[in-house]
Amino acid sequence: MDISFLRREFGDRFIEDKVVASLYIRDASFIEVSQSIIGVVFPEDEEEVVELVRWAVRNKTPLFPQGCATSLSGNAIATTPGLVVSFERMAKVEIDPIDGVAVAGPGVKLEELNIELARHGLFFPVDPGSVKSATVGGAIANGAGGMRGAKYGTMKDWVLGLRVVTGRGDTLKLGCRTYKCRNGYDLVRLFVGSEGTLGLVTEATLKLAPIPESATAVLAYYNDVETLVEDVVKVRANRVWPLFAEFLDAPTSALVGLEEKNALFLGVDVNTGAEERLLKKLRELIRGEIAQEAAGWEAAMKLLEPRRKLFYGQITAARGGVLVIEDIAVPISKLPDAVRGLKAVAAKHGVPLLLGGHVGDGNLHPATWYRREEGPAKVEKFIKDMAELVAKLNGTISAEHGVGILKKELARAELGETTLSYMRELKKLFDPYNILNPGKIF
Amino acid sequence: MDISFLRREFGDRFIEDKVVASLYIRDASFIEVSQSIIGVVFPEDEEEVVELVRWAVRNKTPLFPQGCATSLSGNAIATTPGLVVSFERMAKVEIDPIDGVAVAGPGVKLEELNIELARHGLFFPVDPGSVKSATVGGAIANGAGGMRGAKYGTMKDWVLGLRVVTGRGDTLKLGCRTYKCRNGYDLVRLFVGSEGTLGLVTEATLKLAPIPESATAVLAYYNDVETLVEDVVKVRANRVWPLFAEFLDAPTSALVGLEEKNALFLGVDVNTGAEERLLKKLRELIRGEIAQEAAGWEAAMKLLEPRRKLFYGQITAARGGVLVIEDIAVPISKLPDAVRGLKAVAAKHGVPLLLGGHVGDGNLHPATWYRREEGPAKVEKFIKDMAELVAKLNGTISAEHGVGILKKELARAELGETTLSYMRELKKLFDPYNILNPGKIF
Repeated sequence: MDISFLRREFGDRFIEDKVVASLYIRDASFIEVSQSIIGVVFPEDEEEVVELVRWAVRNKTPLFPQGCATSLSGNAIATTPGLVVSFERMAKVEIDPIDGVAVAGPGVKLEELNIELARHGLFFPVDPGSVKSATVGGAIANGAGGMRGAKYGTMKDWVLGLRVVTGRGDTLKLGCRTYKCRNGYDLVRLFVGSEGTLGLVTEATLKLAPIPESATAVLAYYNDVETLVEDVVKVRANRVWPLFAEFLDAPTSALVGLEEKNALFLGVDVNTGAEERLLKKLRELIRGEIAQEAAGWEAAMKLLEPRRKLFYGQITAARGGVLVIEDIAVPISKLPDAVRGLKAVAAKHGVPLLLGGHVGDGNLHPATWYRREEGPAKVEKFIKDMAELVAKLNGTISAEHGVGILKKELARAELGETTLSYMRELKKLFDPYNILNPGKIF
Repeated sequence: MDISFLRREFGDRFIEDKVVASLYIRDASFIEVSQSIIGVVFPEDEEEVVELVRWAVRNKTPLFPQGCATSLSGNAIATTPGLVVSFERMAKVEIDPIDGVAVAGPGVKLEELNIELARHGLFFPVDPGSVKSATVGGAIANGAGGMRGAKYGTMKDWVLGLRVVTGRGDTLKLGCRTYKCRNGYDLVRLFVGSEGTLGLVTEATLKLAPIPESATAVLAYYNDVETLVEDVVKVRANRVWPLFAEFLDAPTSALVGLEEKNALFLGVDVNTGAEERLLKKLRELIRGEIAQEAAGWEAAMKLLEPRRKLFYGQITAARGGVLVIEDIAVPISKLPDAVRGLKAVAAKHGVPLLLGGHVGDGNLHPATWYRREEGPAKVEKFIKDMAELVAKLNGTISAEHGVGILKKELARAELGETTLSYMRELKKLFDPYNILNPGKIF
């Protein structure tokens, strides 16, 4: 393998030091990785990315693209002794408030983007749990979702155009700078959620939204999940489309500092001046015990803060054990069945269970864990039964975290061999030498 | 060719009569078609669609899928002596207001779907000009857009799942019933806008939205387009995201019964009770002469009615000539340049020009026409210059009507040979025998 090329072309932007490089091998998925890699390289522009792909093809060496490695499915892990490509240095952003777009490098962080956008009364609505560190490139690779998914959709709905380098070393300019674009097949959305396996994103044109004038929110406690879900549906049936409708089960609520009851965080974007009327409407519709109310955009966002501690609450509960965070979605009508079923399956296999997620789009994140010394056997049985339950409820085992390494078997079962074979052929078309993030999805 | 199979399997759902069949050869694009086809077949379920594809492969005979043939780019035209597959009979729909989805056959009409949905306080937001007759299958094939594109996006944002039959006769179940779905590559969106060239859609799972509580709208006249565009941008910068922002130039305004001035139809969805405050805000922000105001959802929709007459206005103006309706989009900041440039190019080549479109997403529909006896030479020169102008303004020559037959050359120039070659390989992957709507896009 020709390492000298990397040394010559990238200088101190190519890190070979084993200790430093080892920091770039893992992601947030708790998957243990032991093998070493060639190193980490930090390209600064598209031309360098093209050179890297050509080098990888010549040297039959895999490239592992990386944003901030917040993946929970192992999408960002270097599984073989290849080269990690970090996009940290490709973090330029151009905001055009008139066109309503931002043109961003893959290394731009979503939170930083939103701080800039706020000056123009705009925001980028995709809001994954990892929003403080997640990057544009990573969010595209993962097809990120989050708390505003029910109303604002996910990453696929907010990427207008892409520049990508395929596994053949071709540079493709896809999509448009305009909101509407119908020039041939929609390759932009084929790349969104492809987990870095079809091409490396070097630039993204993102659609922006005006920040709503105002918002209201309530925090309500429930004895049973059925009523909680019914209330969210009732609000929507009354021509109110919640901005967020987040759920924590009783033990999780306690972990993030709330009462030990099922909690619903329900937020609605409204016109200035309409806050009180909407709160009145929510009070009439909601049967849970309303513990907090908020009027105004900032206040509504603040009310949601305990929900953002979900991940830390789960880590705390696992107490050094290996945390496994699942990511299912079921049709909203099936949410109570899913909660009941998950509790039963966890009890059956004697594994701990914490539940939280997004009611508005049926997306739950069941969390469980095991001690290293006891091994994952019980948790694996739980996951198998969970997948069966999800299939029975017409849901999906991968709502927003992607397939990565952890969900390969489950995705295979859900998709079926025929669909999977078309996906494999697509992979071959864009990356015939299998150098782009190999070992993921399939 | 084995016609007996069609006769035996489809009985009176296979029409061979040349006169009746000739009704299914054309679409709304004014492209003249003279050759005859084998006939029209009306499958009733997915199994019959699979049989048709297998028959087509065996007999090397193209299939031309058809909804209501409202395409303006020639996407729905039978260009060779093949078989038209009409989805008229596959028009079942199941609405689930709790899950917020509709599962619809390809033959369901968008307008009929919306009539059903209104009973549940829901609607399907994609609103193309042809909404009264456009079908779900056709809207998917075309990736339809329309008047709510700036806020609600286009068809790609509202299709959650698909069942399709590929050109190899495989049935694929793609996507999910849930709003979030990340099980492998996003093939759903690869099919949306693929113009029937990759597979035949047999069922679609659509995302639904609650009808906004209320709305306000104004009709304002402007002396210059610059101020009109600036006003729309200003409204958005004040944290108001218009539901629609439609534009007609002076001659078009006159054609649909308004004053002969540049007209802006600006609608905003609001909370009940906030109508008057929003109208006041619009009055303050807008510098045009406000000729009409509306408060309430129905009133706002009614104010927009003259805009919906655009197509008929254009037909009237063409007086039996061959009407050519283009479909460009430019970044919003470039709209005034686009309007000025189009007028200059039309004057240069001495062709008539009517302008209307969607300011909120930069999508204009320049319309021109020619007499059959004089031929299209001047109009072709106009289109060539229009495409150059659009490229210079960083726009697209196909915003929402698709490539079809009319835009093949322009799309080739816009996409470039490399991207196009990947698209051709995709076509080969899904339809290796080139039996699905051949002669379109490429």
